[in-house]
Amino acid sequence: MSLILRRGIASMASLKKASKVVCIGRNYADHITELNNAKPKQPFFFLKPASSILPPGAGPVVRPRGVDLHYEVELALIMGKQVKDLEPTDEKGALDAIESYALGIDMTARNAQNEAKKKGLPWDIAKGFDTFLPVSEIIAKSAIPDPHNVELYLTVNNEHRQADSTELMLFRIPRILSDISKVMTLEQGDIVLTGTPKGVGPVVPGDIMRAGLRVGGKELPEAKIEVE
Amino acid sequence: MSLILRRGIASMASLKKASKVVCIGRNYADHITELNNAKPKQPFFFLKPASSILPPGAGPVVRPRGVDLHYEVELALIMGKQVKDLEPTDEKGALDAIESYALGIDMTARNAQNEAKKKGLPWDIAKGFDTFLPVSEIIAKSAIPDPHNVELYLTVNNEHRQADSTELMLFRIPRILSDISKVMTLEQGDIVLTGTPKGVGPVVPGDIMRAGLRVGGKELPEAKIEVE
Ligand SMILES: [Mg+2]
Ligand SMILES: [Mg+2]
Ligand SMILES: [Mg+2]
Repeated sequence: MSLILRRGIASMASLKKASKVVCIGRNYADHITELNNAKPKQPFFFLKPASSILPPGAGPVVRPRGVDLHYEVELALIMGKQVKDLEPTDEKGALDAIESYALGIDMTARNAQNEAKKKGLPWDIAKGFDTFLPVSEIIAKSAIPDPHNVELYLTVNNEHRQADSTELMLFRIPRILSDISKVMTLEQGDIVLTGTPKGVGPVVPGDIMRAGLRVGGKELPEAKIEVE
Repeated sequence: MSLILRRGIASMASLKKASKVVCIGRNYADHITELNNAKPKQPFFFLKPASSILPPGAGPVVRPRGVDLHYEVELALIMGKQVKDLEPTDEKGALDAIESYALGIDMTARNAQNEAKKKGLPWDIAKGFDTFLPVSEIIAKSAIPDPHNVELYLTVNNEHRQADSTELMLFRIPRILSDISKVMTLEQGDIVLTGTPKGVGPVVPGDIMRAGLRVGGKELPEAKIEVE
């Protein structure tokens, strides 16, 4: 991890200063089924605060009292430029706007989220506690030639829980960035979480989550997350 | 508006760089009744992205196609320091953590929000479009000796729509900052919107909103918002 802030190059320090973190919901069909949700006709998204980002080695995910804490492993895009009103067909524009990648775990207070859903209340509390976004080191763009062909995985206490390819995304990155950017201008340094595949589930204090990704069968060391 | 960035002093440039904007929902009893909502047992809150901030003179609020656009005038707190796990009884801690104030209009895509509520989906799209947070100039802390004794008002085409005192807040500022800071650490420069009094309603393109606030019956010029 580079501690030197270079103009236009993401660093862990710049991640914590992201002006927003936008997360896509329900972007993998099997994950929608496992939570008994409806398949969306268009991407929907929500925000996590930058204060929820947990850099590598910065300590455990803190479970708030009474919370049913779930993991969701996701590929994160780190934006390299401002994006506004991107067309969904503009694949080159979408990929050019990405500066680098990271792996992230969208930690979720599932019981609080379910109660919010029932009451029609916002999700931001259930998604936004401090430490609810463990991230990996930054992954150079060149290390992921095709973001729709990446194997994500997550284990809990060395048991496999999530392992799927990003090729299973319902809405692909150009469509996602288009939809977001027609609502909220994306700024340089903003982070986009692209949704989680099936296999989400609970963790309790003391559990060890390990997550990572493989490109062409090869693990990227900088993408590893190990967090209690 | 100062264009010089001074350390620890909010400026319009620093507002746009807020690491988060946290908004309290349903914090005035008569506003809850007018939207047929349930009175919350505790403060709830949601996020707006910094990209939605519309500085003074930066142009009109842009209504997305098909959107039923509502105004909500609110007193905004600009945080002067990091706040984490504040106790609700710590009035001094809460007020000391405020650096300055602003007036804000929490623009809301009411039909999108109602649909999200019905479907149990996040509010972030309905609340987060570009230009959905017109703000005033920054108000020096000394200009508001008691943030619970401020008259907020909003007119549309010179017709009175909202006019109430912040003394009507259901949850006062120490409780609000306590609840938020137990979920999300507040950082210096973060913005907290404290909820809207009764009188919310629709605006259409061409309408002129004017909002402001009075302290001891005296209008603060820096708190004025005039926006189409
Ligand atoms: Mg929300
Ligand atoms: Mg997720
Ligand atoms: Mg509001």
